[in-house]
Amino acid sequence: MNEDTVDNALQTVDGDGVEYRDLGFGTVVTGQSRERLLNSNGSFNVRRTGLGPLAAINLYHTLLSMRWRTFLLLLLLLYFLSNVLFGSIYASFGPEALVDTSSTPMDNIFIRGFFFSVQTFATIGYGTIHPAGIIPNLIVTIESYYSLLINALITGLVFARFARPTARVVFSDVAVIAPYRDMTGLMFRIVNGRSNQLIELTAVVMFARFVNENGRTVRRFDTLDLERRKVSFFPLAWTVVHPIDKHSPLYGLGADELVGTDAEILILLTAIDETFGQQVHSRSSYKPEQIKIGHKFVSLYNTVEDGAPISIDIRKLSKTEPESSR
Amino acid sequence: MNEDTVDNALQTVDGDGVEYRDLGFGTVVTGQSRERLLNSNGSFNVRRTGLGPLAAINLYHTLLSMRWRTFLLLLLLLYFLSNVLFGSIYASFGPEALVDTSSTPMDNIFIRGFFFSVQTFATIGYGTIHPAGIIPNLIVTIESYYSLLINALITGLVFARFARPTARVVFSDVAVIAPYRDMTGLMFRIVNGRSNQLIELTAVVMFARFVNENGRTVRRFDTLDLERRKVSFFPLAWTVVHPIDKHSPLYGLGADELVGTDAEILILLTAIDETFGQQVHSRSSYKPEQIKIGHKFVSLYNTVEDGAPISIDIRKLSKTEPESSR
Amino acid sequence: MNEDTVDNALQTVDGDGVEYRDLGFGTVVTGQSRERLLNSNGSFNVRRTGLGPLAAINLYHTLLSMRWRTFLLLLLLLYFLSNVLFGSIYASFGPEALVDTSSTPMDNIFIRGFFFSVQTFATIGYGTIHPAGIIPNLIVTIESYYSLLINALITGLVFARFARPTARVVFSDVAVIAPYRDMTGLMFRIVNGRSNQLIELTAVVMFARFVNENGRTVRRFDTLDLERRKVSFFPLAWTVVHPIDKHSPLYGLGADELVGTDAEILILLTAIDETFGQQVHSRSSYKPEQIKIGHKFVSLYNTVEDGAPISIDIRKLSKTEPESSR
Amino acid sequence: MNEDTVDNALQTVDGDGVEYRDLGFGTVVTGQSRERLLNSNGSFNVRRTGLGPLAAINLYHTLLSMRWRTFLLLLLLLYFLSNVLFGSIYASFGPEALVDTSSTPMDNIFIRGFFFSVQTFATIGYGTIHPAGIIPNLIVTIESYYSLLINALITGLVFARFARPTARVVFSDVAVIAPYRDMTGLMFRIVNGRSNQLIELTAVVMFARFVNENGRTVRRFDTLDLERRKVSFFPLAWTVVHPIDKHSPLYGLGADELVGTDAEILILLTAIDETFGQQVHSRSSYKPEQIKIGHKFVSLYNTVEDGAPISIDIRKLSKTEPESSR
Repeated sequence: MNEDTVDNALQTVDGDGVEYRDLGFGTVVTGQSRERLLNSNGSFNVRRTGLGPLAAINLYHTLLSMRWRTFLLLLLLLYFLSNVLFGSIYASFGPEALVDTSSTPMDNIFIRGFFFSVQTFATIGYGTIHPAGIIPNLIVTIESYYSLLINALITGLVFARFARPTARVVFSDVAVIAPYRDMTGLMFRIVNGRSNQLIELTAVVMFARFVNENGRTVRRFDTLDLERRKVSFFPLAWTVVHPIDKHSPLYGLGADELVGTDAEILILLTAIDETFGQQVHSRSSYKPEQIKIGHKFVSLYNTVEDGAPISIDIRKLSKTEPESSR
Repeated sequence: MNEDTVDNALQTVDGDGVEYRDLGFGTVVTGQSRERLLNSNGSFNVRRTGLGPLAAINLYHTLLSMRWRTFLLLLLLLYFLSNVLFGSIYASFGPEALVDTSSTPMDNIFIRGFFFSVQTFATIGYGTIHPAGIIPNLIVTIESYYSLLINALITGLVFARFARPTARVVFSDVAVIAPYRDMTGLMFRIVNGRSNQLIELTAVVMFARFVNENGRTVRRFDTLDLERRKVSFFPLAWTVVHPIDKHSPLYGLGADELVGTDAEILILLTAIDETFGQQVHSRSSYKPEQIKIGHKFVSLYNTVEDGAPISIDIRKLSKTEPESSR
Repeated sequence: MNEDTVDNALQTVDGDGVEYRDLGFGTVVTGQSRERLLNSNGSFNVRRTGLGPLAAINLYHTLLSMRWRTFLLLLLLLYFLSNVLFGSIYASFGPEALVDTSSTPMDNIFIRGFFFSVQTFATIGYGTIHPAGIIPNLIVTIESYYSLLINALITGLVFARFARPTARVVFSDVAVIAPYRDMTGLMFRIVNGRSNQLIELTAVVMFARFVNENGRTVRRFDTLDLERRKVSFFPLAWTVVHPIDKHSPLYGLGADELVGTDAEILILLTAIDETFGQQVHSRSSYKPEQIKIGHKFVSLYNTVEDGAPISIDIRKLSKTEPESSR
Repeated sequence: MNEDTVDNALQTVDGDGVEYRDLGFGTVVTGQSRERLLNSNGSFNVRRTGLGPLAAINLYHTLLSMRWRTFLLLLLLLYFLSNVLFGSIYASFGPEALVDTSSTPMDNIFIRGFFFSVQTFATIGYGTIHPAGIIPNLIVTIESYYSLLINALITGLVFARFARPTARVVFSDVAVIAPYRDMTGLMFRIVNGRSNQLIELTAVVMFARFVNENGRTVRRFDTLDLERRKVSFFPLAWTVVHPIDKHSPLYGLGADELVGTDAEILILLTAIDETFGQQVHSRSSYKPEQIKIGHKFVSLYNTVEDGAPISIDIRKLSKTEPESSR
């Protein structure tokens, strides 16, 4: 009897006082990946096989999270193809079904059909091209229902893209292990990359690495204690600090140990976006080559004249200097 | 004097440290149902009589939760019937009230009315059919107001369907009672069936069964302690584990006892859908015939090549093997 | 030096373990109201004077919370008056500015203007009436901008009315003081009046009454301890129970004391509406004449046949019987 | 080795039991600002340099938070310029490409193009002006796609402005230090400036000032304990009270000390707006010149007749009187 029957994947417990030394992740690592778990941009470096293709695509989520440029091109394509389709249907009934009373009627029936479809889909209806007979009018009925739905969908999607809470917390490119009080601390800096206000920003920082346990290689997780877990305001910058005291799992570890154990610092930020009162999340991670030991961050503060408010320079976010240079 | 005056129905207290052994549910079970409380799909297996029919239908909730296919067909029906109605009203004033100046005018006044209504409702207005006189123009005024409202309603509904947070957490078809540390544990597995991210996933698991108390049959609830109640991330899968130690109400129970007491494992999941920062819920339940004693789940992990990320196979979610087969 | 400098109005502390016996509400009651604080429908029975009329009206909140009938009539009025206004402007430039090419042109220039405005506002544009000259075309430009805004506003309002979370928790008409365990308890019953699901329903119950303190009449508040404060599910009904033990401020009070001290039971419910994952609130209050001492609620349960699910009859929600009738 | 490597900016920890005397804000203040941190209207008095101009502008946030007047003027400008642009394109193909069949055709081709663009953008399409040939019809196709997007954007923005939760909590212009129980207290008053209901209003009050620490000038923060941190209801007004007992950092401080240390009282309010169940925030701050020592607030209560509800006069919110005048 042992723990092998529990096979929990990447689980990390929140920092509310409870600490789980064993997260059940990968008790047997034979054949398992030693790659990083979180990419720098916060996405998970994992794969799930066996999901159906539809579940994997997830149209709505894709439409919400793609770039505006891609989104608008996709809509243009939908708009164009819809009119090509309906235009061809109108054209298939011949020039008698689609009368063009303008001074210079379009002879090409497909072009006439396409532009008539545009005028119908967009509900313009100049009337110089108009349907004649029951069948063309029925197609107009169908196209106008289709147009109504597409318009509702586009309006809904555009608003959903707007209303979607997306924090852009900028992480420093590197973390440092620098002097802190009478010991050292693991530190990284974050700043709000947007002009909105983030409130009640909370950080959870975890330390993952491979250890040898009873002769087997096991991925182990620890939640790192922080100088503070939560700030009420976030108008400037925050240096998140894990004090490396003797209870810290980082205590006594050097660069070699971090590389050798495939260590990874995982970060989950939670905050309230004041604009809509919505909860937003941001993730990132640092690998050993991104952790500078014996360096410290330079001050972000600008020297200001009398009467000017506090000011920081965001371009210095990732700037470090050797510890001894002070 | 006894507790009979409290007649509380299906109440379950959250797991924040407090535990209520008596939930007041059904102190007298005479004539009461012994059926399952939660269906597998998470809906409640209960009835409420005496609600008015309008409250029971709840149009908005129905429109939001029906399938897209049904929703679009219903809209098409509304669109069609609206035009039939307004078309008939226009037609009732005769061909003089609705002039058709096209090259091939429609002689059937009802068909003319219908297509004119389409062109008005959809705000196309080719103008080849146009209203003549005050009454037809008044009906146009009314139809365009109606059209404005219906368009707003449809746009609102389509967006509400989009914005509605709906988690699709997939539960394993069965739960198992398998070895766990130096005892056994009740386990089931869950996986996110969508490609969105669920954050701060919290599980509450309850055990309901009928017991004999002072000579009366009573439905009794207990909250089951979990190996962990909450995970910060949920990118892969989670095996929820209730360790069956000697304090567990499941301690020493076999398959016969579970069936004989009409036992039921009730599960409530709460999470944050990262897309909109909204709270989502998911429920399910296991009946004794879905609990495999002496079986364990097979590993979900795919064996991966060097440099590939962690990967699980979702098709194995419900796959179990006899415990001794290890 | 005394407490008179703090003049706090109707404040009630949430039940998370902290209890404030003195809420600072009205230490001197001379000239103050003894009326109920909460109306049965949950609205506050208070007045605030000195707010500007605009703040008092609060257009948006009013448009969201009015009945659908009123809302639709108001929109119709706006639609009608907008067209009367723009129609009159068009008409003021004479029949040459608004050409009617239909078979039966409208001679009355105001009627012609009104219907032309309808066709423009609704973006139909049959074209049988059309603007001639620069000024009428400029007014068309303005009207179409106005129409664009009004359409956006109406779509937004209609959706906001849809998306707005509104719980309809039905409270029993009366509360009772009935036997509970080996003492008595204050009880009332609630049921979900809608078909949506409410999750994590939390109740805070307060007891307000006037007491004599150091020779002055003071309104005093106490939070009442509950058998349970929170239920995870709410598919059927909940009998909220405050056990009247000797620590209860209701201990030993009879009907005369409740009436004589202008007592009031204030209730605040908080829940999550599962449809949108939104937090909803519901309030109510009981005055002494709504509290039946020595009565208990009758069972809500329907007797069901074998294999049928649990079922309650909502029409019995407020039904009580004398305690001795058991 | 010292704390200099941590350079945390304006961080304030929430009041849930934890108290951080050192917030790491500005251990070295050389060259740093002594200006106020929060403006009276709740905005942060800070600067961030080095952000790209696009990030600094943040179009969406700006469009949501500007005044309605500015917003509508901006939309009008967009509408006008769009039609000027498309009108000029139509005009560039000459009068043959844009036929005007009305009784009084517009001779100026640019004016004709502008009004045709209006009729197309707004999807009116009278048809008296209509495009002739393939190129003009193609431009119509592009304009109608553009119009579709702009309409969706405007509808989305208008709704987002509506749905955005914006509390308007009115703070008293001044704070007072007045007698409280058998000591004194720092007090300010707040009232809801809107007719919506705010629920679960929570206050965090911080005290910032410059102190001399080891020979260096340091900005120091303390969270002030409150008589109560949270009220469930907020129908009238709330006098927030920090009792100045001997543990208070304000203990024994006079006006001179407050001015001399550039003191500032920072306030963060959090509440739930009942209309949409959304979390709202409000901030403010008091500088020493806004703190009246030895004054107290006058009562807000109106004397009411028998049977009338409780009533307060909001115009008295900031009204104080000398303490001895009681």
